[in-house]
Amino acid sequence: MAKDMTLYWGAGSPPCWRVMIALEEKDLRGYNSHQLSFEKMEHKSKRVLDINPRGQLPTFHDGQLVINESCAVCIYLESNFKKQGNELIPTCPNEQALMYQRVFEAVPLGQKLGDVIYYEWKFPEGERHESAKERNKNAVALELSLWERYLKQTGPFLAGKTFSLADVVVFPNIAYAFYYGLCPERFPKLAQYYNLLKERPSIKKTWPPNWEVKKDLLKELPKTS
Amino acid sequence: MAKDMTLYWGAGSPPCWRVMIALEEKDLRGYNSHQLSFEKMEHKSKRVLDINPRGQLPTFHDGQLVINESCAVCIYLESNFKKQGNELIPTCPNEQALMYQRVFEAVPLGQKLGDVIYYEWKFPEGERHESAKERNKNAVALELSLWERYLKQTGPFLAGKTFSLADVVVFPNIAYAFYYGLCPERFPKLAQYYNLLKERPSIKKTWPPNWEVKKDLLKELPKTS
Repeated sequence: MAKDMTLYWGAGSPPCWRVMIALEEKDLRGYNSHQLSFEKMEHKSKRVLDINPRGQLPTFHDGQLVINESCAVCIYLESNFKKQGNELIPTCPNEQALMYQRVFEAVPLGQKLGDVIYYEWKFPEGERHESAKERNKNAVALELSLWERYLKQTGPFLAGKTFSLADVVVFPNIAYAFYYGLCPERFPKLAQYYNLLKERPSIKKTWPPNWEVKKDLLKELPKTS
Repeated sequence: MAKDMTLYWGAGSPPCWRVMIALEEKDLRGYNSHQLSFEKMEHKSKRVLDINPRGQLPTFHDGQLVINESCAVCIYLESNFKKQGNELIPTCPNEQALMYQRVFEAVPLGQKLGDVIYYEWKFPEGERHESAKERNKNAVALELSLWERYLKQTGPFLAGKTFSLADVVVFPNIAYAFYYGLCPERFPKLAQYYNLLKERPSIKKTWPPNWEVKKDLLKELPKTS
């Protein structure tokens, strides 16, 4: 089954990492794995654009079926290999609802992290403002406080007592924040969650190969009320 | 069943509209509907913040269960009332995968529309740049061309021959673009889709009450190659 699957991915990208974790969790090994380089702009190469007109990674296919959106790939793998590996979608309606809520809330989390991390990349020199940088840091501090609170309410996992698709989807964003210097003392529940999950086999096995040196862009975040 | 459900919503908001369409499609009528005013900042009122710490609409609850993210509410309604009203998630794995892909692609669509529509609201006066406005208009033109192509490939609906959750989620964004002046001649497939779906009972019944006068922010979009 996995041998019919192909994944194009880039190192360190949370959306790519999600799919790699999901494949591990579903015991789908031996798929065709192609690591491409963002630095060399290989995600904008013809071979990617032919499959994914957005020119983004991950790009996944299973036989003739192409799925380019990371969360959609994860749901596809769970739906089609429900009884293989770990079940990722809770059957209890309330847990399932919470899980999907957190999956979709990965959007503002990823976006607010990106607003800080990619600021210089997004805005050319003449358009950059200290006031905007501050506003973005405030927004990401508030967003991370919200996730800190979620973990207090439901932990140890994002949708309760069991590892689920919410963790597959959101963990790479949380890990990304720590890679960019997030302070564990300021966000103790997030740090606890990070430390718990980084030892999980599916996550250890797929850890981004380029994450040796930490960065410090998120080290100092403004106080939130 | 629906009498245990409560929806707080704001007029014209695509995420709120999604949930209202899904409730109609699932024959869930008679729920407690509370229209709040964005202008009066009622989405930041204590009664919303107590349920939804993001201070955003929609906010939905079914008995004690609170779900605040619009797509998660739609999936919850479909999962829990599968055999009631119209089935919104295709059972064919390939159609289902395409459907989820389009659901998650509503994110960049909504974001790029928002970058143009809310530009002045997002950036204070000293931070606004004509170059950024142009870049945003280019991005939304490219994004809409992609959806035009999707409809050419799969139409009449977004995941193929049948109305699905992809349409529930994405139609409000497409309608929003036309409300903001999108040119039907430039995007004929999107216009055809818009005209087909606006006659659908679930959509007619929930049409935003404040959309009499059209706006023209998206009337002139740059050419894309």
